Amino acid sequence: MRIETILSPLLFKNIDSIEKKIVVVIDILRASSTITTIIDHGAEALIAVVDEANASKYKNKDYLIGGERNGETISGFDFGNSPFHYKKNLVKDKTIVLTTTNGTRCVEMSSNASDVIIGSFLNLSAVANYLKNKNKDVVLFCAGWKNKVNLEDSLFAGALAKKLTNTHLDDSTLLCMDAFEMSGKDLFKTLQKSNHFQRLEKKGVIKDIEYCCKLDTTNIVPILKDGLIVRG
Amino acid sequence: MRIETILSPLLFKNIDSIEKKIVVVIDILRASSTITTIIDHGAEALIAVVDEANASKYKNKDYLIGGERNGETISGFDFGNSPFHYKKNLVKDKTIVLTTTNGTRCVEMSSNASDVIIGSFLNLSAVANYLKNKNKDVVLFCAGWKNKVNLEDSLFAGALAKKLTNTHLDDSTLLCMDAFEMSGKDLFKTLQKSNHFQRLEKKGVIKDIEYCCKLDTTNIVPILKDGLIVRG
Repeated sequence: MRIETILSPLLFKNIDSIEKKIVVVIDILRASSTITTIIDHGAEALIAVVDEANASKYKNKDYLIGGERNGETISGFDFGNSPFHYKKNLVKDKTIVLTTTNGTRCVEMSSNASDVIIGSFLNLSAVANYLKNKNKDVVLFCAGWKNKVNLEDSLFAGALAKKLTNTHLDDSTLLCMDAFEMSGKDLFKTLQKSNHFQRLEKKGVIKDIEYCCKLDTTNIVPILKDGLIVRG
Repeated sequence: MRIETILSPLLFKNIDSIEKKIVVVIDILRASSTITTIIDHGAEALIAVVDEANASKYKNKDYLIGGERNGETISGFDFGNSPFHYKKNLVKDKTIVLTTTNGTRCVEMSSNASDVIIGSFLNLSAVANYLKNKNKDVVLFCAGWKNKVNLEDSLFAGALAKKLTNTHLDDSTLLCMDAFEMSGKDLFKTLQKSNHFQRLEKKGVIKDIEYCCKLDTTNIVPILKDGLIVRG
């Protein structure tokens, strides 16, 4: 199994033969953690939408709409991008439309892959097991922040790569594994150094970061099927 | 001092206000190590040229021409990209024209920066001292390999960032510092995991890699001045 890590959407064009590969979309703070939570809380499906105007079209049509730009809930939307917004009693059996600054675009960019799944620390082991069972080449696609590399997505890529065996690793993956190793498993403390932590701290959502650092709280794997993200 | 690391030329567009910043061009295997060696060996100047045809124009005009594509010496050129080709008695007081797969392009891309200097493990401390004295914001520009992130350039970025103090670091720099820390100062052993090592090993130039891992063999800092790379 070959593992390559794409540290920013600008590096996406480096991927060869994506149609044969599984892409794991990683946007730890917060889209991929929130999507994992939404599917874990029993939503029937999630539609990842790149732009706000397209998301708005789903309003008042039996959908619930979530959206964030620059870390803030979009005005008039049912939810923001905090996993705490998506309570079980609100999302169960519903279809949620979600648009975020970075993560939802990565889902769209990956749509030609053999499989597209969503990875977060919340479902780390479940994602690792999914990849082991499929035994195809893997792309760990980090959403980053506005095309910049970020620490939290890189740490997740490293954590996931370390759970897989008999792999051929590219240099980006080696970097991520080193960073995860150096974190000494205290992710929350490590992330306090990151640029994103400083942004979210100003918005008063430290509890979101603590939540997104939790390991293996669910065994679901959100997967893209016919344009919908559903329970895998 | 703000430090940002650009892990691939594809991420170069993320840099704001480059005209106020010092760019350190990093292509450890082998352009920046070779350029450091050429200047250390007394060459009057070096001209970094992006394409082979442009480099060829300098032939038979009082220049010596070095060039490499995909790790191989270009046919008809005086030198390849191995630092061992550029012996003191051959390059002293000469102007060398050099074209390589990755590194020379990064010099050209950076030409609008406040300063452009060349960094390698061979002049690590000298580069750190140069940056401390200038006290401007810094871009650590890793050439990578054909737009992909590579381990050796990232390790150098991490080693250099660790030598600077009172810095604001972006997340890419944090990743590189972790990777350098994990290398336990045995760079050569660490690089054996890298994709580039495997490429160069096939070409029988392991001694080049050993050489490029040496620390602080010179205190010169090659710097771009009016299109020429000279001793800083």
